[in-house]
Amino acid sequence: MAKTYKIAVIPGDGIGKEVTPWAQKALEKAAEGVADFEYEQFDLGAERYLRDGSILPEEEEERIKANDAILLGAVGDPRIKAGILERGLLLKLRFDLDQYVNLRPSKLYKGVTSPLANPGDIDFVVVREGTEGLYCGAGGAVRRGTPNEVATEVSINTAYGVERVVRYAFKLAMKRRKHVTLVHKKNVLVNAGDMWQRIVDRVAEEYPEVTHDYLHIDATTIFLVSNPSRFDVILTDNLFGDIITDEAGAVVGGVGYSASGCINASDEYPSMFEPIHGSAPDIAGQNKANPTAAILSAAMLLEHLGFDDAAKKIHAAVEADIEELGSTVRTTDQVGKDILARI
Amino acid sequence: MAKTYKIAVIPGDGIGKEVTPWAQKALEKAAEGVADFEYEQFDLGAERYLRDGSILPEEEEERIKANDAILLGAVGDPRIKAGILERGLLLKLRFDLDQYVNLRPSKLYKGVTSPLANPGDIDFVVVREGTEGLYCGAGGAVRRGTPNEVATEVSINTAYGVERVVRYAFKLAMKRRKHVTLVHKKNVLVNAGDMWQRIVDRVAEEYPEVTHDYLHIDATTIFLVSNPSRFDVILTDNLFGDIITDEAGAVVGGVGYSASGCINASDEYPSMFEPIHGSAPDIAGQNKANPTAAILSAAMLLEHLGFDDAAKKIHAAVEADIEELGSTVRTTDQVGKDILARI
Ligand SMILES: CC(C)[C@H](C(=O)O)[C@@H](O)C(=O)O
Ligand SMILES: CC(C)[C@H](C(=O)O)[C@@H](O)C(=O)O
Repeated sequence: MAKTYKIAVIPGDGIGKEVTPWAQKALEKAAEGVADFEYEQFDLGAERYLRDGSILPEEEEERIKANDAILLGAVGDPRIKAGILERGLLLKLRFDLDQYVNLRPSKLYKGVTSPLANPGDIDFVVVREGTEGLYCGAGGAVRRGTPNEVATEVSINTAYGVERVVRYAFKLAMKRRKHVTLVHKKNVLVNAGDMWQRIVDRVAEEYPEVTHDYLHIDATTIFLVSNPSRFDVILTDNLFGDIITDEAGAVVGGVGYSASGCINASDEYPSMFEPIHGSAPDIAGQNKANPTAAILSAAMLLEHLGFDDAAKKIHAAVEADIEELGSTVRTTDQVGKDILARI
Repeated sequence: MAKTYKIAVIPGDGIGKEVTPWAQKALEKAAEGVADFEYEQFDLGAERYLRDGSILPEEEEERIKANDAILLGAVGDPRIKAGILERGLLLKLRFDLDQYVNLRPSKLYKGVTSPLANPGDIDFVVVREGTEGLYCGAGGAVRRGTPNEVATEVSINTAYGVERVVRYAFKLAMKRRKHVTLVHKKNVLVNAGDMWQRIVDRVAEEYPEVTHDYLHIDATTIFLVSNPSRFDVILTDNLFGDIITDEAGAVVGGVGYSASGCINASDEYPSMFEPIHGSAPDIAGQNKANPTAAILSAAMLLEHLGFDDAAKKIHAAVEADIEELGSTVRTTDQVGKDILARI
């Protein structure tokens, strides 16, 4: 009998609400016969916050933690000051559930038009650290609002936190084209950059088949445009990972095709899967958003639970859909139905 | 009689040595009859460091300060640990000479092939803060090399430092298409981001003709690929400015066409002009590097000293050269001669 997995669903804001149901449907259909899913819906995000002021009540966070995995839509609303939902909900989950690997594949699908004139074959994965760096919330301000204000932001990096994500990247490279590129800015951020480089060099010795190189973050933004095929596994910190995965999303034809996993690779807490696009308030509620990234995040969830064949079904369906219909303007529901029909 | 200006010349490393003489020649020819230049050469960079261990001796820095402006080639050498020359020479000059505006125009010239399929008209300027943020060198490491190592990097941002560069950006926008885009990551870096936004909003009130908007750094990397024409003046901090100007350089067909000015807009110290490309050790000494960016940095120097007409001569010569010969493979010296002949 198929085992039942408990999935926490946080549709969140804007188009998150429209695309997440399609991720759930794809999950069920792809895993038919091998796994069943029991959903627990969480009403978190902008509307909840505006209604009763709560962002992530402790009791609800505990219930989320009791699930086997999390599907997240998108978080963010222009009515709410920047940072409140991001730090109070999304980043709080990533940190509290110790999701230290933020995994973001970028692939140029056949049928998708890249904004690049000669994109070549693009197929790489960014392994972004998810629980350290400038995202810790360390920092503050003095004399706020005066001409003498000083505001600081502190990037905290630990050998413990860096080593575990470095190991993940090298292990992942073994299943791929066996090349890791460390991205940092070690000529300026000499303390953190030096530590990252030393740990990469040390772990690399355990993976003699994997080659590795180093690029500054600024040079990386050039290569993503001029030669994205050069990348296999990109390994980087929290902020640099945030930046280059958006650029990578653009290069493969839009963040509408990019999914991500916030992974607790030690399995102490559930991992979380989300499209990398935001809540897109400008098109929300209009049945316009592309659910492909959300559906691909369901595939990542399946892989994480060990259902590689089910995940492959979703990938194959998405690839076929994009190749045939990628350039057709369709509603959210139409794309969802078209992909479902192929799973 | 034409006034004589004293220019400190720091060719630096690699291709810096090959392109800088062309910047000097362009300077002289464009300003013929209106300004004369007296050069003081400084032997600083990798070779000097490897020879006698000095990076920027105080006495030489004092002599640099006594000049009216600085022409810099490029700094960096693979034989030297990342950070030593960058922080000891390039960043030390930017900080000690209080070059708080790092000005980086991006323009897609006719005749240059952008890697984008539909680049559109690209013509914007990045106003990057140059003396604060994560570039301060604040940070450190404890338990270095152990499993308990912690490394920090601190971004320091002051109202004083932010306001002066914000004012510069709005003033510059008045001479252009009157639009300023603040780029930050205020949903995560809430202390610094909030201060930047408040200061922008306040200064904007003094410029009712200038419109302004805000983009997260991650979204900016998308727009630079998908719609770079949307930008006029981009205003941002030191690290984000570093990142997006390299991406912008790629989008306009390569950093070979991108010059920059490290400007002390209060004129207490000389400003410094440099191509944004690096020392490119892979092609150094082969007469292959494109001197166009260095020549354009000479034009920025002329504008800074108030010689707008002379600067325009260089711009016109570069534009004509690229339009006619941009796609021809030429040596450094050939490109230099071709541009010189048109000034
Ligand atoms: C919403 C924001 C806090 C988040 C981040 O910066 O990590 C987003 O940009 C992402 O990449 O998932
Ligand atoms: C060499 C390096 C320190 C420098 C920087 O980061 O500012 C360079 O990348 C630049 O953009 O001028």
